[in-house]
Amino acid sequence: MAALAVAIGIEAQTVWHSADTLLLYGKVNDSTETRYERLPASLKGQVRDQQWYLGKNTAGLAIRFATNSPVVKARWKALNNFAMDHMTNRGIKGVDLYCLGEDGWRFVGSGAPNRDGNGDKTLVQNMVPTWREFMLYLPLYDGVTSLEIGVDSCSLLSNPRYESPIRNTPIVYYGTSITQGGCASRPGMAHTNILSRQLDRETINLGFSGQGKLDIEIAQLMAQADASAFIIDCMPNCDTEIVRERFVPFYRTLREAHPDTPIIVIENPLFSYMNFDQEKYASITALNTELRRQYAAVADANSMLLSPGVGSGSDWEGTVDCVHFTDLGFLRYSQWLLPYLQDLE
Amino acid sequence: MAALAVAIGIEAQTVWHSADTLLLYGKVNDSTETRYERLPASLKGQVRDQQWYLGKNTAGLAIRFATNSPVVKARWKALNNFAMDHMTNRGIKGVDLYCLGEDGWRFVGSGAPNRDGNGDKTLVQNMVPTWREFMLYLPLYDGVTSLEIGVDSCSLLSNPRYESPIRNTPIVYYGTSITQGGCASRPGMAHTNILSRQLDRETINLGFSGQGKLDIEIAQLMAQADASAFIIDCMPNCDTEIVRERFVPFYRTLREAHPDTPIIVIENPLFSYMNFDQEKYASITALNTELRRQYAAVADANSMLLSPGVGSGSDWEGTVDCVHFTDLGFLRYSQWLLPYLQDLE
Repeated sequence: MAALAVAIGIEAQTVWHSADTLLLYGKVNDSTETRYERLPASLKGQVRDQQWYLGKNTAGLAIRFATNSPVVKARWKALNNFAMDHMTNRGIKGVDLYCLGEDGWRFVGSGAPNRDGNGDKTLVQNMVPTWREFMLYLPLYDGVTSLEIGVDSCSLLSNPRYESPIRNTPIVYYGTSITQGGCASRPGMAHTNILSRQLDRETINLGFSGQGKLDIEIAQLMAQADASAFIIDCMPNCDTEIVRERFVPFYRTLREAHPDTPIIVIENPLFSYMNFDQEKYASITALNTELRRQYAAVADANSMLLSPGVGSGSDWEGTVDCVHFTDLGFLRYSQWLLPYLQDLE
Repeated sequence: MAALAVAIGIEAQTVWHSADTLLLYGKVNDSTETRYERLPASLKGQVRDQQWYLGKNTAGLAIRFATNSPVVKARWKALNNFAMDHMTNRGIKGVDLYCLGEDGWRFVGSGAPNRDGNGDKTLVQNMVPTWREFMLYLPLYDGVTSLEIGVDSCSLLSNPRYESPIRNTPIVYYGTSITQGGCASRPGMAHTNILSRQLDRETINLGFSGQGKLDIEIAQLMAQADASAFIIDCMPNCDTEIVRERFVPFYRTLREAHPDTPIIVIENPLFSYMNFDQEKYASITALNTELRRQYAAVADANSMLLSPGVGSGSDWEGTVDCVHFTDLGFLRYSQWLLPYLQDLE
């Protein structure tokens, strides 16, 4: 149609469509205050302020759509205009576009925010105009208060024409700043998003930076999902006392609601500073020992305790700061996890 | 000694040492305006202003030292306090510490700048006090006007006790923003720095963001080095006209000064947008065709033209913005290049 427009001398313009009617991945349910956030409104005042704040970060949320436009743009407003020294603004508050091809989802282009945190970016252009399926990942460490998709005025935009048959039984992944996507260079490289593409299965990101402390309210939220698996990967935010007091009730909340669903528990990864810092080595070793002890009390036929070892790679190069994964660490971590998730029902 | 200090009740304090007397890697020669920059003073006014500005970015520069301190700190002042949306501040203007172990150089910790661009950071602590060899990488996209290393007052700091026997025949690597390290999460993950560690050979980074346009002044500078290999990897900053006019003189400047030294020329990598953007696909294809034509006119027994293909990985995931490598892309690119550099004299 763009070719037709050129042929008959019409100059195509950009038409903006609100993303609010497009399919949204990554939420346990729709009972949130606004569309683009993770925690249900009922938890406001029930969880710590910082946890509530992070619930409005859009980690793991993604818009699905189809279009035959030769150009795809995005326009969004950031909630906080947050910044960190060890993560790109593009990962914190940018967007990231993938396209479905014969060999799966492929990276198309990412969009950076402006200085005010808002974005208005062309993500790809000059495409042969044919129908394609797209996924747009939302910011990992900020929220969006509005989101629009821009396409060529001679083209159409619609909800996806293809939907994964296993989308409705998501993996529900609980964790820390690492799970939330710290420090992916762009939203698509958080490991929950990588796994979602590789498995073609929705993955709900319940990673909360510094707040993955086995809070029972989060277990209760997770239990509401018709999950294909639950993953508990929050050790870097815990200490031995938290694990001793809260791990068993957290686990049982999931297990009582889902007697047969796999629950995967992950030990604290080994971080490169442990090769040098004796105190950190001792504290992480003690934490993992306590986790094993508590896990033993609840282990069942559908549970699994995994040790990621280095997690981010045996060359210790997969982190930006000895803790938070880069794209390199995230890809390795997802490759390590993938075999445990490939045969889910 | 720290243990002794504790035993006798002395509280160790931090002592700061200027890095100015410590061994510095990554410069062709010492005729620069200040210590921590890349271009000789003689090129001031001779190269484009932006090229001169980028010469003061410390990409590829690294300090070598040894200490028996249980803690290592760094304190530095930034030249520009530069920022970009697709690269971390830690990569742009932070520092990155590695330690030499039995299996080579290992990541220890990175230091982030404060908001003013200056840094004052503990990079590692609580180590068993024994002599270790360290390498501290300097900012990739900013400069430093001063640099100090902090150690425990009960410890010693010295120049390295170990030096690679092949340090004095560096690889001299010419390129673009990618070569300069865009967009590594921390300085050690630029591919020239990765290669330097893996080969245990000094690698001189002459990557200049947006300025890798085959300027003859840079070829003349490169030719001053007693190089083990020259690498020309600047196609993303060139167009067919630049390649047609400047490639042959650039190459000949190196070859006439170094008749037997390997010269490796690298085609423009394929970027993921090329899967979608027809115009970019056409322009990069034309550029590589022109490079092959010009290269054919000068090819000799010690030259090589390499096609990196995707460069950043066949899953197309190794970039932040379809062009600039993340740590994932840089590691893959260095793995791809390594075999060509392993047998250098």
